[in-house]
Amino acid sequence: MFLVDAILGRPLASDEEKRERISTLGGVPTFGLDALSSAAYGPEAALTILMPLGAAGLAYALPIMGAIIVVLALVYLSYRQTIAAYPEGAGSYTVAHANLGQPVGLLAGAALMTDYILNVAVGISAGVGAIISAAPSLQPYTLSMCLAILVFLTIVNLRGVRQPGILFMLPTVVFVCFLFGVIAWGVYQSIVSGGHPRAVTPPPHIGASATAVSVWLLMRAFASGCTSMTGVEATSNGVQAFAEPVVKSAQRSLTAIIAILMLLLAGIAYLVQVYHIGATAPGTSSYQSVLSQLIGAVAGKGVLYWIGITSIAMVVCLSANTSFADFPRLCRAVAADRYLPVSLANRGRRLVYSEGILVLAGLAAVILTAFGGVTDRLIPLFAVGAFLAFTSSQAGMVAHWRRHNGPRTSMAFNGLGAGATAATTIIVIIAKFVEGAWMVVLLIPALMLFMIAVRRHYDAIDRETAAGPLKVTPRCHPLVVVPISQWSVISQKALQFAMTISDDVTAIHVESEQHADTLPGEWRSRVEEPTRRAGRKAPQLVVVKSPYRFVVGPIIDFILDLERHHPQRTVAVVLPQLVQRRWYHYFLHNHQGELMAALLLLKGERRVVIVDVPWYIGH
Amino acid sequence: MFLVDAILGRPLASDEEKRERISTLGGVPTFGLDALSSAAYGPEAALTILMPLGAAGLAYALPIMGAIIVVLALVYLSYRQTIAAYPEGAGSYTVAHANLGQPVGLLAGAALMTDYILNVAVGISAGVGAIISAAPSLQPYTLSMCLAILVFLTIVNLRGVRQPGILFMLPTVVFVCFLFGVIAWGVYQSIVSGGHPRAVTPPPHIGASATAVSVWLLMRAFASGCTSMTGVEATSNGVQAFAEPVVKSAQRSLTAIIAILMLLLAGIAYLVQVYHIGATAPGTSSYQSVLSQLIGAVAGKGVLYWIGITSIAMVVCLSANTSFADFPRLCRAVAADRYLPVSLANRGRRLVYSEGILVLAGLAAVILTAFGGVTDRLIPLFAVGAFLAFTSSQAGMVAHWRRHNGPRTSMAFNGLGAGATAATTIIVIIAKFVEGAWMVVLLIPALMLFMIAVRRHYDAIDRETAAGPLKVTPRCHPLVVVPISQWSVISQKALQFAMTISDDVTAIHVESEQHADTLPGEWRSRVEEPTRRAGRKAPQLVVVKSPYRFVVGPIIDFILDLERHHPQRTVAVVLPQLVQRRWYHYFLHNHQGELMAALLLLKGERRVVIVDVPWYIGH
Repeated sequence: MFLVDAILGRPLASDEEKRERISTLGGVPTFGLDALSSAAYGPEAALTILMPLGAAGLAYALPIMGAIIVVLALVYLSYRQTIAAYPEGAGSYTVAHANLGQPVGLLAGAALMTDYILNVAVGISAGVGAIISAAPSLQPYTLSMCLAILVFLTIVNLRGVRQPGILFMLPTVVFVCFLFGVIAWGVYQSIVSGGHPRAVTPPPHIGASATAVSVWLLMRAFASGCTSMTGVEATSNGVQAFAEPVVKSAQRSLTAIIAILMLLLAGIAYLVQVYHIGATAPGTSSYQSVLSQLIGAVAGKGVLYWIGITSIAMVVCLSANTSFADFPRLCRAVAADRYLPVSLANRGRRLVYSEGILVLAGLAAVILTAFGGVTDRLIPLFAVGAFLAFTSSQAGMVAHWRRHNGPRTSMAFNGLGAGATAATTIIVIIAKFVEGAWMVVLLIPALMLFMIAVRRHYDAIDRETAAGPLKVTPRCHPLVVVPISQWSVISQKALQFAMTISDDVTAIHVESEQHADTLPGEWRSRVEEPTRRAGRKAPQLVVVKSPYRFVVGPIIDFILDLERHHPQRTVAVVLPQLVQRRWYHYFLHNHQGELMAALLLLKGERRVVIVDVPWYIGH
Repeated sequence: MFLVDAILGRPLASDEEKRERISTLGGVPTFGLDALSSAAYGPEAALTILMPLGAAGLAYALPIMGAIIVVLALVYLSYRQTIAAYPEGAGSYTVAHANLGQPVGLLAGAALMTDYILNVAVGISAGVGAIISAAPSLQPYTLSMCLAILVFLTIVNLRGVRQPGILFMLPTVVFVCFLFGVIAWGVYQSIVSGGHPRAVTPPPHIGASATAVSVWLLMRAFASGCTSMTGVEATSNGVQAFAEPVVKSAQRSLTAIIAILMLLLAGIAYLVQVYHIGATAPGTSSYQSVLSQLIGAVAGKGVLYWIGITSIAMVVCLSANTSFADFPRLCRAVAADRYLPVSLANRGRRLVYSEGILVLAGLAAVILTAFGGVTDRLIPLFAVGAFLAFTSSQAGMVAHWRRHNGPRTSMAFNGLGAGATAATTIIVIIAKFVEGAWMVVLLIPALMLFMIAVRRHYDAIDRETAAGPLKVTPRCHPLVVVPISQWSVISQKALQFAMTISDDVTAIHVESEQHADTLPGEWRSRVEEPTRRAGRKAPQLVVVKSPYRFVVGPIIDFILDLERHHPQRTVAVVLPQLVQRRWYHYFLHNHQGELMAALLLLKGERRVVIVDVPWYIGH
């Protein structure tokens, strides 16, 4: 226990919960890292699609990022309203389930879960990828590094909701300040140079146009850029993690996250254009990330450059933390409605939903291992889930306002948001279908069916086990069976207990081939005679022969047979059990008792009850 | 079960045992493959040590092999007598234990076990090595091939004692006939050519002498050659596996094995000299085994050569089978004296000691895996065990004859044998100490200590659990505790059973933080009222608060507390248990009942008894 306490911290009492809550500022690293880190790959994803257009493509970067920022603004306004309307936790699942019913709720839930799981794998793997591109000698350790970070994040999150906020504040602040500084300096340079700043380290020359521009290409660029928006929903799921007043704290935290993200996206889009920075082909030796080119162009490649690149890699790695903060809360909400195993709704020793954290870590570990720590191929799967959730959430809010006669402007905002995100969802699915979005399109309904099956199972069990008032039956002692292999204090104790609960006690003994069988003789002198002398009914000894040397089978057959012949009685099987205090004594004794208990439970009937009478060695 | 039957065969009844016994001829592949395969590496091992002497070394080959054959003859005569004296199974352990007491018995047992385990790993690995040197492209699959052969041998042996005899007869016959043919033809050629036969495929030229001959070198050559003798003891352990008359059958089988081995060793030693065949440096590209050179020299490298080499590789592989036949019998003998877990003495479904077979396979798999399927480095460890066992066995026989006033000639033979093998043991240990024999010298005493500890544990438990006549106490109902989380038919059934065995029933409920707690209210209307109406004492409900959200801990504390306050009563904990028929429902329900049972057993006291009341879903 000492070790567990050291790693996870002492258990927290339920009433210590208030002290564990996080501030507005703490919310940014806790729930915002996924969104903020998007600045590092969203614009790059869009520019990569525009590459075939060459230098001409750059002209489209600003409008595309503009469109993305507009959708982002709509999503922000919508979630801001949702937080106020659902202070209990305003995730897409909750809102959609409450307002649009089970199917849409589960769609939102399943979509988000998929997204969160992918986010852990992709975030960690991208961060590690950045480290490795800086130090290629670490290449063989890719997977180990990924898993180490995963374990680290898991432990930090198991320690409670405040821990990541405290631990990850510094890298977040460095990341934001650094990028703001670069953007501000770049914009200033651009203005003083009349829109034509000189790059300190010039970015690679952009090639000539290879294809003409097409709507399809722009659509794909927009869809790819939309990955910038994943993680925006996180804060709304975690409203209850914030300090009082929860709604205000959560809203402020969300505002801070979105404002920073918008500024970053806008700044990057502007600078990319004035500095003539395009994406380079990933996977080639000349590859250089857009942010790296941009920092180089604005600030050169000095010490500052390396600090910046490091903070970006860290934040990308830690973006997985958003999933750790949110996935368990989402699972809790779904499990509370019994669409997932109910234990996901239990708060663990540090008041977080530990089981959800472990499930997330497990699934992410499986994905990371399956892909050897390189999850590039998973990136196209991204964003579909997030946008499905956005759409369901906002459509849910429209229904909410309609039902509660809410303000028209609120409804209009949410309606607009729903329309914009629905359109975006369709664009993302179409544009990325062949690249892998089809997998998500199959996975989400599969998850939904699973959740419905879980709920049906719980409902069936509830129906089956619902009980009325206790039926008080006249007292009727059970038939008791005591399997005995030899006469010892262990079997004596079991027999004594059997005789305290019933007068109908039968001992059963399987004749073994190895030893001369002394039990029947001992039985007469050691059990029958003393019992008769005490004036009690003596237990009966049944000896069974076993031609195939099986011991457990014949006893179970005997018990089931007895049960069948006494349809009104309960059969209690009393198992004498030797309990070892030392695990390494396990192999020195037979475990027929345990095997018998397991088989009886498996094959047994409702009228068979199993009694373990333990005997402790060395007591 | 169908699959198990298909792989292992149907269970055999204990009285089918006679039909499972093996004939004299069947004994050769079952118990003799280890000894016979020695012909393939014993002479080579001796010649390898003689290599530095160059061509001059060959002159020493015949005398050394002669000495080995003499020792072999003594060992043979000794075991032949032992079989007659101990028809129950005449292994070194049995003989030494019976005549020289526990320490020497365990020394023989431990030595043999070590040897048998090594033999499996080394035999399989040598066979696979021969296959790979013929087909080097299989190199990457070394370990997989080793493990596949191990699994195959395990299954064949689990199917009963007759199976290996039947299956491995053909390769044994091919191997023996082929080598006899080669030797006979070689000897004939040598005689007609006046001792100077012409080699069909001339063996590589033997280099000049690099060092002068020394006693140390000859000693080492003798010690290495002695590996030819491992496996000779096998038949004596398995006397009871033979058909009636067991002693005659076993003796004839032993005679056949030893006669063949002697002829092979003598023939090879003679031909090596006349054909000028020396060992080549192992591990180099010019390496060629002695037998391969010899067959090439006598018969050329045609089709016959390849058939011969294949049969040799097969027999070397299958030499591991001797361990599979003998190790479980040895373990049975030791376990029957309770120096090893007693379950090793149980005969499995096919009347063989299945557990011993599995233990052997498991240990061999560990060694093979640890060494990646290449066990050359283990070869020096060999033979120490065998010779320790030989010596203890023969010394035991001397004591046996002395005690029973046996014939003087018998005693003389065994005495001579004991002396010769003791001397050989010392030579082997000295000659191979630095190469690895020191490991065996440490391992064997460790094993002995382990066996003594096992016996002490059993003795202690016997003392502690020995029981006199049953103490019949006046009937006193147990205190019954029923942990209940909610009111359902499951808890109702548990409560009903509790009320049949006692009037003192307490239900305990831990207040959970998640749900509004309806149980206390339900308790009044659904339990207390009906019980009172029926005129019975109502069970009491105790509600426990749990600030840290633990459920199992507070209940266990309550139970142990109750037990402490009622020093005269037994406390029966009745656990309502939902049993799922489908394993995948496991995660949908809590397993606090199972956890509680396990913890109660662990922390519990002798007066706590655990009752599982199962409720089956979908019944």
